This record gives sequence, C-alpha cells and structure tokens, in this order.
Amino acid sequence: MPLDHSVIGLDGEPQERSWTAKDTMLYALGVGAGTSELEFATEKGQRVLPTFAVLIAQSRGRRFGDFDPAMLVHAEQGFELHRELPAAGSVRTTTKVTGIYDKGSGALVATEAGAVDVETGELVVSSRSSVFIRGEGGFGGDRGPRDDWTLPDRAPDHKVTYGTRPEQALIYRLSGDYNPLHSDPEFAARAGFDRPILHGLCTYGVTGRALLHAVAGSDPARFKAMSGRFSSPVFPGESLTVSIWVDGTDVLFRTAKDDGTVVIDRGRAVVA
Amino acid sequence: MPLDHSVIGLDGEPQERSWTAKDTMLYALGVGAGTSELEFATEKGQRVLPTFAVLIAQSRGRRFGDFDPAMLVHAEQGFELHRELPAAGSVRTTTKVTGIYDKGSGALVATEAGAVDVETGELVVSSRSSVFIRGEGGFGGDRGPRDDWTLPDRAPDHKVTYGTRPEQALIYRLSGDYNPLHSDPEFAARAGFDRPILHGLCTYGVTGRALLHAVAGSDPARFKAMSGRFSSPVFPGESLTVSIWVDGTDVLFRTAKDDGTVVIDRGRAVVA
Repeated sequence: MPLDHSVIGLDGEPQERSWTAKDTMLYALGVGAGTSELEFATEKGQRVLPTFAVLIAQSRGRRFGDFDPAMLVHAEQGFELHRELPAAGSVRTTTKVTGIYDKGSGALVATEAGAVDVETGELVVSSRSSVFIRGEGGFGGDRGPRDDWTLPDRAPDHKVTYGTRPEQALIYRLSGDYNPLHSDPEFAARAGFDRPILHGLCTYGVTGRALLHAVAGSDPARFKAMSGRFSSPVFPGESLTVSIWVDGTDVLFRTAKDDGTVVIDRGRAVVA
Repeated sequence: MPLDHSVIGLDGEPQERSWTAKDTMLYALGVGAGTSELEFATEKGQRVLPTFAVLIAQSRGRRFGDFDPAMLVHAEQGFELHRELPAAGSVRTTTKVTGIYDKGSGALVATEAGAVDVETGELVVSSRSSVFIRGEGGFGGDRGPRDDWTLPDRAPDHKVTYGTRPEQALIYRLSGDYNPLHSDPEFAARAGFDRPILHGLCTYGVTGRALLHAVAGSDPARFKAMSGRFSSPVFPGESLTVSIWVDGTDVLFRTAKDDGTVVIDRGRAVVA
C-alpha cells in the first residue's frame, strides 16, 4: 500500500512535552554517563547532555500511511540546539513530513520538528530525522537529496572509545522508548537478531558524549548541532569508538564497533 | 541535646505513596537486576523485587529530636511482605518510633511502619528499621533487646556473588534517596569516605535478589520476610557475596565483600 504523499509539508498537531531533573539524569545514565560525568548524572550543578534535545523534539506528526511497523527503522537523526537545555522544562513540538523518497527496496520518510519553549515561544530545538520503511519503495518517486559528506584524507583528530553496559538498553528505555526490540529476546529473534539491540538513539547519545568532551570542552552551551546516519545495529555491551575530524567549528565524525563496523555514518556536528 | 522519648509508641501522620511500573523497573536496575532478570527489569510479565517493599513502607514519622543528620546511619532494616507487590500500586503508610536505646557512643532509634493498600485497607508490608545516631547516647537508658542470631556450625548452603557497577549508586538514587553521600565526592570526603558509598538499601536490594533466586525459586510470592544489620559501607563497583543457610522456611544470611568484610550481618529471611 503506497504511503500518503499528501501530508508532505503539513504540520502535525503541536504536542507539549515536559521533563524533570530526574528525567535528564536518567537519560544521562541511559547513554552511559557515570561517575566521571556527575554534572550530567546528578542534580549538583546539573547540566543536560545536548542529545537529550532529540527526545524533547519528538512528537507524533500526521499519519503518512499504513505499513507494518516492524518494517520501519530509524535511518537518520539530526538536531540543532538554539540554547542550552535546562535540567527541567517544557516545550511545544510540531512535526511535519518534508519528503517521501523512493529508495527502491523501501521508502525514506523525512521529517522536521521544532520545539519551542511553552512560556516564551522561543525556538529551543530544531530536529530532522528520517525513517526507512522496507517494502514501501518502487513507486517511481524521487530518490531524494544527495549528501556530499566525505572524510578528510588524514587520520582522525580525536578518537574516543566508550564501553556500553550489558544493561544499557534496559536503562535507556526508561527514557521513553519501550520498543521490545531492545529488551525482549523473543521479540528480537522474530526481528532476526540473536539478542535485543541497543536503541539507535542510545548509540547516538553515547556518540554525543564523545563529541561533547572531545571537541566542545564538555560544555553543552558550545554544542550547537549534530547529525548522523544509523548504519548498523549495536548490541548492549559492545564498545563504541567515535573518530572525529575538526575543521574550525565544523566537525565530521563516524562511530564504529571494535570490529570496525560503522554504526553511525556521515556524522556532522557544529561547536562554537 | 537528648532525643525526645515522648514520641515512643505514637503513630506519625499516615502518608500515601504511589508507584508505577517504571518505578519498579528503575528500582530493579538500581539494585543490579539486568538482562538475566528481565521479569523485574522490564514490563513484560513484570514482577516486583520483594525488597521494593522497604521503599513503599517509608514515611516520615514524628520528629524524635534535633540532631546533626550527618551523625545518623541506617543500622537495621527488616520487612514482612503480606502479599506479592503489584508492578504499580498505592499504599498508605504509618510509622512510629518503638524505642530509643542507649548504646553509649550513640542512640539507636527503632521504628515500625505499616503500609496498607489505599483501596482495600489490607496490610501489604510491615517494616521495622533502626537508625544509629552518633553522640546521642549516654543518657542512662536501656540498651535495648538482644538478638540470639547465631550461624549454624556448617558451611553455607548457598553462596551467591553479584558485582555492583561503578554507577550503581547513581542509578539506585533515582528511586528516591538523593543523599549526596552516595553521589558527591566532596560531600563523601567531608563524611570521611574516599569516595561516595553505596546506599545501604541498595546493598540490601542486591542481597534480596540473591536470596530470591537462591532460596525462593525466583518467585516473589514465596518471599515472605527479610531483615539484617548494616555493618560496613560498600563502594559502588565492589562485589557482594551472600552466604545463605537454610533451615526449612527459615533462612539465615550474611553479605560480605571480596576481602571478607561483612556488610550486612545477622540476616534472616523467611520463604514459603
């Protein structure tokens, strides 16, 4: 059944989202912050990991068709942070589909969201993401924009390796994504995995920590934007190495597992 | 300044406490349950670790005097579970001081609490605990009841070793005990510790998991009661070995660190 192209460009219903200091601490622990990052994991002088922006900029957009949700994978995620996030706060988020592209084996559905402060109306986060829906391609549509991302011809300027814990997905999911693909071995087996996989946005958050500490001086106020493409699943317990190239305020990165498999590709970030 | 003995036997104001499935999952992760205990750490067929009973039976009792809170340590904790806890629920808890004993170097203040189901009034948890307040002894009072706890003259029937994570206290504290002794290195240093220590009730929860799996067939409905005395601090990251002796439905236990230091002593449990 084809996807519904008529929703492209139309705002979904705005949704409010509030978060507490406990939510942001739980998120920090969920993406692996621990005793060496107490300013994110505890309320003492608390600051918020920039990648939490993705969670507060999530809202249900308009329905773009009927399809098997098991066919959907998170493909790309980007965000721009217009000011540092407070430990607790409230935003109103609006999401719209910006394009439905034909990749042959499936459709790529791109969305944009904006989260504004509920009190001031000020834009706090702009977010872009896309999902890939297997089996929904081949409708004769445009393949979508191409990206000219290429790595410089030199070794990375920084390499940061973080472990993940076997329980990482169990902690991360309490931040709100209860998809059993990340917790239930039977469900994961039906989806073709030996065991539950880590949330893509958890890998994204671990990567964001690496960028924050390597190139933004551990200062969330200097962390302006980040984007990347999910290219391979991660199992909880695996280590992640983020390779980082810096060119002024522009940053390119790639996250890989110990065996070299790239799990977030075509990464970009902006730091002030 | 002496403690106020006039409160002994008087009920404090009843307090309501509600919990959600997320709260009980977070508690399970806080006391170290992970991918091998998914029935406690996720919502699929969710069951509740028996030691969560201690948290829902906590309520503020009557004030029993002015003293420096830094002088207070949790000394003993016991609970009786009258029925298996639901993943989410509400209780009304009433606490009273049952004795203030003179231990010379300090005072031991014993309390009892009862938590009843807010809907049915049925007693769910009975809890007993005591705190030791350094410097408040020497008032010429009774030393309090003696306990005839002695271990059988044989090797333990079960020995269970669980690791704790370096971040264990950071996760555990999100269940509601934000005392900086367990998270803030500066605060811990002022209290005389090299680094933050694990919550006594976290060690207690880890111990409860060991008992549950070793002698109650991993079935919370068979876990009827547990008590023990906190005898030494634990640092997050240390391993805990629970030695267990079984005599019918009566269980004795002791929890120790790898170096043999006993951290929960005089342990008793009852399983059906």
